[in-house]
Amino acid sequence: MSHRIYNFSAGPAILPEPVLQEAAEGVREINGSGMSVLEVSHRGKDYETIHTDAETRMLRVMSLDPTEYAVLFMGGGASQQFAQVPQNFLKPGVTADYVVSGDWGAKALSEAKHYGDAREAASSKAEKYAELPKSFTQTPGARYVHITTNNTIEGTEYFELPDTGDTPLIADMSSDYLALRRDYSKFTLMYGGAQKNIGPAGVTIVVGRKAFFESANTDLPKIYSYKTFLESRSLYNTPPTFPIYVVGLVLKWIEGEGGLDAIEARNRHKAALLYNTLDDLTPFFQPSVTEKADRSLMNVTWRLHDEALEPDLLAEFKKAGMQNLKGHRSVGGFRASIYNAFPEDGVRALADLLHDFVKRKG
Amino acid sequence: MSHRIYNFSAGPAILPEPVLQEAAEGVREINGSGMSVLEVSHRGKDYETIHTDAETRMLRVMSLDPTEYAVLFMGGGASQQFAQVPQNFLKPGVTADYVVSGDWGAKALSEAKHYGDAREAASSKAEKYAELPKSFTQTPGARYVHITTNNTIEGTEYFELPDTGDTPLIADMSSDYLALRRDYSKFTLMYGGAQKNIGPAGVTIVVGRKAFFESANTDLPKIYSYKTFLESRSLYNTPPTFPIYVVGLVLKWIEGEGGLDAIEARNRHKAALLYNTLDDLTPFFQPSVTEKADRSLMNVTWRLHDEALEPDLLAEFKKAGMQNLKGHRSVGGFRASIYNAFPEDGVRALADLLHDFVKRKG
Repeated sequence: MSHRIYNFSAGPAILPEPVLQEAAEGVREINGSGMSVLEVSHRGKDYETIHTDAETRMLRVMSLDPTEYAVLFMGGGASQQFAQVPQNFLKPGVTADYVVSGDWGAKALSEAKHYGDAREAASSKAEKYAELPKSFTQTPGARYVHITTNNTIEGTEYFELPDTGDTPLIADMSSDYLALRRDYSKFTLMYGGAQKNIGPAGVTIVVGRKAFFESANTDLPKIYSYKTFLESRSLYNTPPTFPIYVVGLVLKWIEGEGGLDAIEARNRHKAALLYNTLDDLTPFFQPSVTEKADRSLMNVTWRLHDEALEPDLLAEFKKAGMQNLKGHRSVGGFRASIYNAFPEDGVRALADLLHDFVKRKG
Repeated sequence: MSHRIYNFSAGPAILPEPVLQEAAEGVREINGSGMSVLEVSHRGKDYETIHTDAETRMLRVMSLDPTEYAVLFMGGGASQQFAQVPQNFLKPGVTADYVVSGDWGAKALSEAKHYGDAREAASSKAEKYAELPKSFTQTPGARYVHITTNNTIEGTEYFELPDTGDTPLIADMSSDYLALRRDYSKFTLMYGGAQKNIGPAGVTIVVGRKAFFESANTDLPKIYSYKTFLESRSLYNTPPTFPIYVVGLVLKWIEGEGGLDAIEARNRHKAALLYNTLDDLTPFFQPSVTEKADRSLMNVTWRLHDEALEPDLLAEFKKAGMQNLKGHRSVGGFRASIYNAFPEDGVRALADLLHDFVKRKG
């Protein structure tokens, strides 16, 4: 590529360059097979290797035991999981607790109400989701508790997990999946679109306890049933083969970089660099998340005190080859999404530009 | 690529070489943007062009009026449409007629029973699906009639469509979507996975009358609602961007080749070449579909009279660089899938090999 821009997109997002190079080769021809990776049958040997490799690496990177956990590759995005989770585990009269820490969590709750007694167990909406809910009351006998580990729009992230006791903890991890070393075995079911930290758009990665999948409702269409995907190893019908292939390449890259400990260290370093800059430059710039313990490593959100300067700043970003820094349309301001593959030099360049901007305009 | 094999896969299947070359370039960098096509935001300009282009070309190739019809890009494969169609249009007490002409049609019917009074209006199961049902009785007041235009496993295809009067005709077109010039305006809703004639796996293309989508049920999760996809132009959540991008490239290729008339002429020529060979070599080889008018242009299925010779024939295919010619596991025998991008010289090579095999073993 002639020049790589700094792509701060919230997703689909930047991917590691070696992954892109290998994926481009795969589109031309895979393993000297005389076929593009786009052309291989999902029932053939070439694809079987790709599929198994992605499953195996996913659990290994998460330090999960493959006898207890399984990986399912599905379509429809995390938004479809908002429906599939309750469809598989709720029914009228059965309760689930939803901790609503952002817009996506609110959508998950709303879809769940179609299937059972889904309750808002806590919400930080009154605080405009600028912090995580401090606590929540569990409903006795709830089928599960649902949280969003990272709030892409608002820029908050869970580091300490709520203790739900024996109640299964389910999480939408779309925007911090594999971005830090968590004890993933505390979750019974996790899901997320690949398109932020793990691959391109088009595949949703569901990881969960096999026993939990097996306990799911049975009176639903086969295609919506986690059991179908568990029993067929996500090969009940044609899976999104190319997105899964790229996920495998990204997982290989993560392992090559040193796994989640190395990834987390780098992500913490990048985020600190940016938050420190914003704190230094307050009140000219104002980080949207004032509760420092809740600040996301992935999506750094802030505002300009003088909103009239926004167009100037956006123009300077563009000139500097920095793209997709506009905040989500529902909240405004700015957002830098600095996922796993986002390079430190890009964060440093952004911090320098912000300092310089204040020097000139402040 | 060093050597292209003859890939007779039933799907994911062979794609046009120029499409693969352009897609590989796109994975490296799209439009000199400094980003891979895998990295562009689905809310950005680069992707907007890709998305609109694919929608526009799809309707143009099908000669459908964009004021009447819309294209929806979804995940989950045609199998998910087996559930989504009845979820959107049936409810308890509402009837739909299913014409079951193969294994996939039977699955569609089975999923539909979860939502309403889905009836088997006709079936050729007693004939092992080796021909299409000759007729069917419409249920008065049925919400729709559902057919499968091409039966991938069994090798039959509809050329004359059943006349359903005012009742909407819905079709699973997965394996002959855009493979021939049909009057697509006879259908109210069509769907299919892209991975046979139109692109890679990972996107399902739903084309239907806007007014019909607008008449759908409203009491279902947003993500399962056609209305959501219609109103958001398939951008309610992140769509499978790369599969849609490749669909656009394939549609451009189809238009460049002369559109559906040219594509159909070529497909008819390839299929005739192969069926004539099999008829000539009967009874050594036996085409599975004896009703000639029902023979698929896409999936040519046949058996060896002496099944003991099957391994020899498969070994010869392999040696000749011909892959994926084994019949579906549920029916056995052989199957040559010769979709739009499959070259005539590959069909000729297969016909020659079959003649030669009979000469030596017959």
